[in-house]
Amino acid sequence: MGLELYLDLLSQPCRAVYIFAKKNRIPFELRTVDLRKGGRPAGVCASESVAILLYLARKYKVPDHWYPQDPQACARVDEYLAWQHTALRRNCLRALWHKVMLPVFLGELVSPETLAATLAELDMALQVLEGKFLQDKAFLTGPHVSLADLVAITELMHPVGAGCQVFKGRPKLAAWRQRVEAAVGEALFQEAHEVILKAKDSQPADPTLKQKMLPKVLAMIQ
Amino acid sequence: MGLELYLDLLSQPCRAVYIFAKKNRIPFELRTVDLRKGGRPAGVCASESVAILLYLARKYKVPDHWYPQDPQACARVDEYLAWQHTALRRNCLRALWHKVMLPVFLGELVSPETLAATLAELDMALQVLEGKFLQDKAFLTGPHVSLADLVAITELMHPVGAGCQVFKGRPKLAAWRQRVEAAVGEALFQEAHEVILKAKDSQPADPTLKQKMLPKVLAMIQ
Repeated sequence: MGLELYLDLLSQPCRAVYIFAKKNRIPFELRTVDLRKGGRPAGVCASESVAILLYLARKYKVPDHWYPQDPQACARVDEYLAWQHTALRRNCLRALWHKVMLPVFLGELVSPETLAATLAELDMALQVLEGKFLQDKAFLTGPHVSLADLVAITELMHPVGAGCQVFKGRPKLAAWRQRVEAAVGEALFQEAHEVILKAKDSQPADPTLKQKMLPKVLAMIQ
Repeated sequence: MGLELYLDLLSQPCRAVYIFAKKNRIPFELRTVDLRKGGRPAGVCASESVAILLYLARKYKVPDHWYPQDPQACARVDEYLAWQHTALRRNCLRALWHKVMLPVFLGELVSPETLAATLAELDMALQVLEGKFLQDKAFLTGPHVSLADLVAITELMHPVGAGCQVFKGRPKLAAWRQRVEAAVGEALFQEAHEVILKAKDSQPADPTLKQKMLPKVLAMIQ
């Protein structure tokens, strides 16, 4: 049985897995899931995606730079992957939902104070991303692109999709984004991000779906 | 230069690293940090601990069961380690702080409603731990103890230290706890958990320290 991936490219972890598999020519069958139609909850996908990326890296013996054999280089990737769960991932997710998905898709107004607090937290996470992880290196964990960069860039495209100026006034992060896009390949990067860049045009959910999804969404972004 | 570990055994991630290094006879110098005296923030330690555990497992070539070479077995451990960041870890941390540390150590009252909500969330995470991860296996990811079990048990001792009856009415989890304690060694397990089991006796922080710590703590457990 071949590899089957159940993905919705609206979801950051799904985009990371999709790009990684395509870029490394790992054969898979794409099973499209539509989270906006009540497909399996994003939360499950999110928590498993790092495990899926590591599994694919090991199983298909991809180029070493993605997840280096060297224990110290590998630890730097692991450190980023551990950090992002409760930091950048949470902030990017909240930015997307508070700014776009709750009001546009679920018809739930978000107060300006809540949105401002969310964006301030995102700003703090971006400072850590730039100051602690990227510093003056080409990529987050060293001179070569790794899983850390892939997970980070697909994450940042969440607030970008919501219309946040993530890279404005951050020339280092902006230059890093260009390097990651080039390393992944522009065409693949664009293809994987088409859905999120159109998130603002989401059709409003019907009342039944809204009722079903709202509690799950609120739990996910708490 | 030998390995130096900066640990406070009040912190779950520190306990996991301490037990793992001791159990595997990895030589290290212990640098004690006292978080309750304003030592370096627990948040940093928390996000790095999984990376530290994986680094030690690779660097010191510990027995395979901790972090298996087999990609599928390894993926099960990775899946747990990814899940716990935003689920069990968060809930156990909040249970400890809401039930004991905020009122006793920082003198901040927590409303019964907030505490009840925190404990209800913990209960849901325990259901996932038992129903999705443990199931009918001896350990969380298979027949042998792994890093997943070590991270999970040290986490659960947070609410236990706060006086929560985590294992009551959960015979499967209780039996699993006994197996993990036996695999780690009773004496080492007890030694690593002495501090957390006395968390209820924490001395109240002085006003200066309280003022310094409260915002960090609230951000950590949000």
